[in-house]
This record gives sequence, structure tokens and C-alpha cells, in this order.
Amino acid sequence: MDISHIEHIGIAVKSIADSLPYYETVLGLKCYNIEDVADQKVKTAFFKVGQTKIELLEPTSEDSTIAKFIEKRGEGVHHIAFAVPDVSAALTEAESKGVQLIDKAPRNGAEGLHIAFLHPKSTKGVLTELCQ
Amino acid sequence: MDISHIEHIGIAVKSIADSLPYYETVLGLKCYNIEDVADQKVKTAFFKVGQTKIELLEPTSEDSTIAKFIEKRGEGVHHIAFAVPDVSAALTEAESKGVQLIDKAPRNGAEGLHIAFLHPKSTKGVLTELCQ
Repeated sequence: MDISHIEHIGIAVKSIADSLPYYETVLGLKCYNIEDVADQKVKTAFFKVGQTKIELLEPTSEDSTIAKFIEKRGEGVHHIAFAVPDVSAALTEAESKGVQLIDKAPRNGAEGLHIAFLHPKSTKGVLTELCQ
Repeated sequence: MDISHIEHIGIAVKSIADSLPYYETVLGLKCYNIEDVADQKVKTAFFKVGQTKIELLEPTSEDSTIAKFIEKRGEGVHHIAFAVPDVSAALTEAESKGVQLIDKAPRNGAEGLHIAFLHPKSTKGVLTELCQ
């Protein structure tokens, strides 16, 4: 798989509004976009840190996967996303090497990216996203 | 705080040997260093992904904090480390803005870096390292 960099780190938070002071005032990062991703039932806030973005994920519904994650594990890192040139090819390669896929084919994520998730059972506990 | 990039992501694993095939053969990353950090009771393995490193953390003792983390939460992301030009100054700034510190002063980490941790109670659930 031809990974160029870490595209973003997804972090589950109860409230973006409550989290902004830490990210902006303490860490000194700047939120450049807040976006609703309706089919994921989340609101996202983006910060750029060098090559990588931090994506805060706030659930907008009690049945969102992010709401369930926070209920079970608390706020914290939800996933890591690697940038690849071709998500379909990367999925085919991963599956051929025995990785369990969450998404059999790329779908649309925030910021207009093509994305797909690998199952944490196959990735040593880290929910892993590939994006292009 | 003047963060330039994400220096590394620390990931707790039960066994570096068992994790290498996923990181090297599936993701195509190359482990360039394996190092014991005796005072943290961990063995670490490093991979470079663009600007950022992935640091696998394997406990070398049952009473290591990484062993306790895995026992409680399973394998997965343990911390995020931001690169700053001056860890002491960043700690002073964070504390002045109400952040609870784990380390009141920088100490030595893997790869000869000066490091310090912020408490996840103050960082929206993400154990956060500053390093220089």
C-alpha cells in the first residue's frame, strides 16, 4: 500500500463548542471548517497541524456510531486516516492480505474525500481509514 | 503554543513482533528502529509516515502503564505527540491556561527527545505529549 502521510486523526468529542477552547486557545490551532456529515450523524471540525488534520467528531444523534463510541470508551481518538493514491486498489490489496474490511468499496466522506474503513480486529486495535 | 506538526502517534500493542506484519506487509511502512525505554517499561518500534512517526509501544513489564492501558482498553491509540520548539515554555503556557500537567518539567523520551505529557482530563480525552 502506498501511504504518503497521515491525512487526519479523528477524535470523538461530546461537543465541538466545548472543545474549541482547548484546541484553539491552548494548542493554538485554528479551526478552518465545521461541516455536517448527515449520513454519519456527526458534525466535524477541522484543524491543520503540518501535513495532518485533526477532525473532531461530535455526534448529532444518539444512534450515531460516535455517540456509541463515547458512551463505551469516553472522548478520545476514534480513528487514524492514511492518505493513499487509490482507495479501491488499497482495499483490494488489504483484503488479499487477510484484512477484514468495514467498507468493501470507497464511499464519500467529509471534505469530498473518497474513504473506506478497515476493521480494528485486523489492524491491532486501531480503527483505520484510507482516503484519497 | 507553537505546534509545527504531529511528531508521532503512540499505539499500544501487546507484541511488536505480532504487529510488524500488519504495519510492514499490509500498510507498507518500514520499521526503522526498535528501542527499549527502560524507565517507561516499554519496547518501542518506529515507522515514518510523511512528517509523522508511528510509535508502537509494547509493555515489557506487567506494571507498565502500557500494560495497564491494554488490560483496561485493549490495543489501540495511546497518545498523540505534538512537536513544539520549547517544551518548558509550552508547559508553562498550558498550565497558565488551566491544563492539568502529568509532567511539570520535560523529561527524556525515546529517540533522545525532551517530552512532557498533558493530562487527558484537560485535553478532551486525548493523552497528549509535547516533544522537542
